[in-house]
Amino acid sequence: METVSENRCFGGVQGVYKHDSNTCGCEMTFAVYTPPQAEDGPVPVLWYLSGLTCTHENAMTKAGLQEHAARHGLAIVYPDTSPRGEGVADDEAYDLGKGAGFYVNATRAPWKPHYRMYDYVVSELRDIVEKAMPVQTDRHGITGHSMGGHGALTIAMRNPDLFASLSAFAPIANPTQSDWGRKQLSAYLGDDESAWSDHDATLLLEDRGWKGDILVDQGGADQFLELLKPDALAGMMTRRRQPGTFRMQKGYDHSYFFVNSFAGDHVAWHAERLQ
Amino acid sequence: METVSENRCFGGVQGVYKHDSNTCGCEMTFAVYTPPQAEDGPVPVLWYLSGLTCTHENAMTKAGLQEHAARHGLAIVYPDTSPRGEGVADDEAYDLGKGAGFYVNATRAPWKPHYRMYDYVVSELRDIVEKAMPVQTDRHGITGHSMGGHGALTIAMRNPDLFASLSAFAPIANPTQSDWGRKQLSAYLGDDESAWSDHDATLLLEDRGWKGDILVDQGGADQFLELLKPDALAGMMTRRRQPGTFRMQKGYDHSYFFVNSFAGDHVAWHAERLQ
Repeated sequence: METVSENRCFGGVQGVYKHDSNTCGCEMTFAVYTPPQAEDGPVPVLWYLSGLTCTHENAMTKAGLQEHAARHGLAIVYPDTSPRGEGVADDEAYDLGKGAGFYVNATRAPWKPHYRMYDYVVSELRDIVEKAMPVQTDRHGITGHSMGGHGALTIAMRNPDLFASLSAFAPIANPTQSDWGRKQLSAYLGDDESAWSDHDATLLLEDRGWKGDILVDQGGADQFLELLKPDALAGMMTRRRQPGTFRMQKGYDHSYFFVNSFAGDHVAWHAERLQ
Repeated sequence: METVSENRCFGGVQGVYKHDSNTCGCEMTFAVYTPPQAEDGPVPVLWYLSGLTCTHENAMTKAGLQEHAARHGLAIVYPDTSPRGEGVADDEAYDLGKGAGFYVNATRAPWKPHYRMYDYVVSELRDIVEKAMPVQTDRHGITGHSMGGHGALTIAMRNPDLFASLSAFAPIANPTQSDWGRKQLSAYLGDDESAWSDHDATLLLEDRGWKGDILVDQGGADQFLELLKPDALAGMMTRRRQPGTFRMQKGYDHSYFFVNSFAGDHVAWHAERLQ
């Protein structure tokens, strides 16, 4: 692991690191914020998965999580959203290929060799973070925005032993029924839709639910409501009696101004459940 | 004035607007954050002047001022840092020409026709903001980062009737004695150094001081300490018995992670003096 940059931030350190990923078969970059409390020993950690077109950098500079993480004593991990580099397959569309890994392990050409963001986040990067950073191994929470909200919800529900708290900002909530999902799941996993259900938050919620409570914020003026399908998720939460809070936030759109506005609530939510 | 974008943010609105500037002779873009309190009537306003290479956008997305502005009921204005457009003179260097207006009115070719950021901020944009935005005309504060800290200090000290509160983040503090200053003041104002002293915070502080108290934050690990010359400003504050607070912040560099970390303190400082 190589340090790309480290900047003091709210008394802690905002770092960027890169490493050769065995899982993705390429060099991967990620960011970690360590709060001032980490000087006294390991702290709980919140994973923030980003959306389409993002790298590790967007949320690190725009989401405003650090101030709240410093207050509550949480570390934040910001993974990239796809494999990178010259030898990695890509597509001209912004929503397939680089910047659009969808947190799955691809099983179809040309994506299969590198597009393994599910295993990367769940296993390889987690191992690296636990070994190299002052974080507690048994206190991980996960959240994310848009495609990253999809990643957070699906990864947590499939790995309840690995995560203790869960939230999402405007997640892609029902990708098997959306153009943000059908195209990508078909490309990465093939046309047999039975392979898709492990990557659909609404279907996973119906099938197994989440052991704790879930916080979801959704902007009421989000320009992508038809693609995100929050109604499917909110409806399933209700039908399944899933403990949690779904908030439709009047007037907010899909931008980082929305994420920023509720970052404090989400960090506090995770801090309360991780400490 | 034309609306480029408006996003809900912490219960208020983060807007971006453009207009044909008479002062700069080109189209200019600026951003304004209006807090939720503005729905009930005009609010005090804080001007944030940005540094080299920035537009209106950098601080709007990275400085994290909005959360604090919403809490305290302040509007924030983020001007651009230079004139823009095809017909506007420029230089290959990052620190001269576009993105580097230095908040002066140029008197020398080729800069004279458009590079009038001093008048633009003090007069034209102020008029526009007061007419178009729900702000109080007698409650303006000003701050800024790096070149923008230079702008805030020099503009405020030259216009004590227009501003009621003043602070700066890592300002270019003594540009007449720095390579961040001598090059630009020579280009924009000519080689007669007597014309430069109105644009040097340390010299203005010596000559006239500031009517109130000043808050200055400076990162102790700033990579540009030799160019910023905080020692000159801090020394003059002491010699002149200027009321204020100069804080050397251990470990912080020149980045937005530094600005972000102390944004809350600066917004609170201004709010206390404007309300």
